[in-house]
Amino acid sequence: MAKHGGNLREAAATYGLPQAELLDFSANINPLGPPASILEAIAAGVSSIVHYPDPQAKELHRALAEATGYPVEQLLAGNGAAELLFAIFHALKPQRVGLLQPCFSEYEEAAKAELVTVIAREENDFQPELSELLDACGRVDLFVIASPNNPNGRVVPQAWLERMADKLAERGAFLVVDEAFLDFLPEQNSFCSPNVILLRSLTKFYSIPGLRLGYLIAAPELLGRIQSEMPPWSVNVLAQRAGIAGLQDRGFAERTLAWLAAERPELERQLRELGATVYRGEANFILFRAPLLDLVERLGKRGILIRSCADYPGLGAGYYRVAVRTREENRLLIKSLKEEWACHTR
Amino acid sequence: MAKHGGNLREAAATYGLPQAELLDFSANINPLGPPASILEAIAAGVSSIVHYPDPQAKELHRALAEATGYPVEQLLAGNGAAELLFAIFHALKPQRVGLLQPCFSEYEEAAKAELVTVIAREENDFQPELSELLDACGRVDLFVIASPNNPNGRVVPQAWLERMADKLAERGAFLVVDEAFLDFLPEQNSFCSPNVILLRSLTKFYSIPGLRLGYLIAAPELLGRIQSEMPPWSVNVLAQRAGIAGLQDRGFAERTLAWLAAERPELERQLRELGATVYRGEANFILFRAPLLDLVERLGKRGILIRSCADYPGLGAGYYRVAVRTREENRLLIKSLKEEWACHTR
Repeated sequence: MAKHGGNLREAAATYGLPQAELLDFSANINPLGPPASILEAIAAGVSSIVHYPDPQAKELHRALAEATGYPVEQLLAGNGAAELLFAIFHALKPQRVGLLQPCFSEYEEAAKAELVTVIAREENDFQPELSELLDACGRVDLFVIASPNNPNGRVVPQAWLERMADKLAERGAFLVVDEAFLDFLPEQNSFCSPNVILLRSLTKFYSIPGLRLGYLIAAPELLGRIQSEMPPWSVNVLAQRAGIAGLQDRGFAERTLAWLAAERPELERQLRELGATVYRGEANFILFRAPLLDLVERLGKRGILIRSCADYPGLGAGYYRVAVRTREENRLLIKSLKEEWACHTR
Repeated sequence: MAKHGGNLREAAATYGLPQAELLDFSANINPLGPPASILEAIAAGVSSIVHYPDPQAKELHRALAEATGYPVEQLLAGNGAAELLFAIFHALKPQRVGLLQPCFSEYEEAAKAELVTVIAREENDFQPELSELLDACGRVDLFVIASPNNPNGRVVPQAWLERMADKLAERGAFLVVDEAFLDFLPEQNSFCSPNVILLRSLTKFYSIPGLRLGYLIAAPELLGRIQSEMPPWSVNVLAQRAGIAGLQDRGFAERTLAWLAAERPELERQLRELGATVYRGEANFILFRAPLLDLVERLGKRGILIRSCADYPGLGAGYYRVAVRTREENRLLIKSLKEEWACHTR
């Protein structure tokens, strides 16, 4: 089974279908992108591959500063958020790491540390207990939490994050808030304090996972420690150009938020109508539970990829994650699900 | 002063010239590239940026296996050789690191360790003493040596590398051989043993430093340790495609070797004719010494960038490194040097 969504090469081999014919709901990528502004920036920039990237990525950092409101001294771009995550662990070397499960599996891979796990339970609609989070914060060197969280789309209240940061600060510990899907929320509250690192991605919102582009926000001293664990020239020239173009494309951002505001509730509704249990969440993907345990394979044979959540701690067989795609694609997903459901219950 | 060559953005700002008008001898990039095969592969692959890279980069690793003769289990691609270098240090955590100076400054940056330095002396034409190398190997956890070495182009004899590897193996220590410029040699001898890591780059030979692409060769167990310190999806899709196309383009490799065989001796000869001291070396760049200490600035004002070697241990003011470029560009360099030389001596 794929460890992550979006491995089209492996899926094509498994189902004996050409990659181009696969409809991918397994990776949480904005179906409206990449915007024309990014494709044009890449086309115009191909000749620049003959030069090293600007090691400071100054223009990109300026564009990030403009888009986020944080000063350039608090911004650090990386070869995808994944590179920054690994650099954080290399810099801070935490012995004990707190995680809210279920969550993105790379936190554990990157941490290579003793884990203190808080479980968000299904019976609470995957909302964790604040007391459990704070208790864990009292026992770790670093806590990684995602908001919105993957795979369930739950947003952690800002007030909770602030209390976690305070609790961690008491023992010189750090809070990493993975905000890879924050751009998909209409209201983007965020805060940064000296022991907090905000991790962001441009690959999902701008549909450029193949180019690799992420960034973090942290206090300058902490940022410097992380940067010293990263190789020079880590962000390639085309990703730098794509990022600048995307961040300045306000029209694309508006279209994306309008699409999601319409299509997410609609897809949720149709999944519920089928009989799936749909969990409360935000962002551009939906966690649901179905009585069919082999939906990944059933849909895969039809060329539709969804993400099994069987391997997430706190979830299991029958849990699935789907990205919200275009109305037409979502309808195709629902139609296929209906047919499989009918086969199953007949 | 620039820490590395090839920072066009900074140079353009320093000299008040547009980037496009700069002639860059400061970065050791093949002036014949990128080949059409790579530009075509990128153009054909732009639509694939919407998907995550193959995390195993299987097709690229197969192409590397075919090109190098090493099995895929011994090959690991990275986001430039720089990423792999950092991952090696993160994985092996050497306390004491051996270096042959002068060398690429990133070894020290990545090592963050106590250094044991062997100096290759000018009076020996930058050939080190084998006895000093072996003595250092008896006192370190890891030795990094480049062959051909940057900035002087010296090739370390294979027999020496084998003796260094043996000496290091006695104490469970490792040898990293940076072969970033090996492809520019007409005869490419190379060896790998269980405590040896060969570090290679595709960015210089194929002229794609902006895309980032390197790889290493190591025994599978050692390779696994290094890979576990690297984030997933580190090689972007366009770099993967470019690498595959380049490795299969034998015509480009042949043209490159023919160009270098003709132009390197010619540029050496002309530099000597000017009165520069030219040091023995191979690869696509030349280290020389000139009686003018401000050549970087003098040429910079003319839009020609060369690399000052003042900041390399064992070198100093008056040492410069230039890439070998096309015949016409080399002539322009020599013409400008002649004029500056004349101003200076008048």
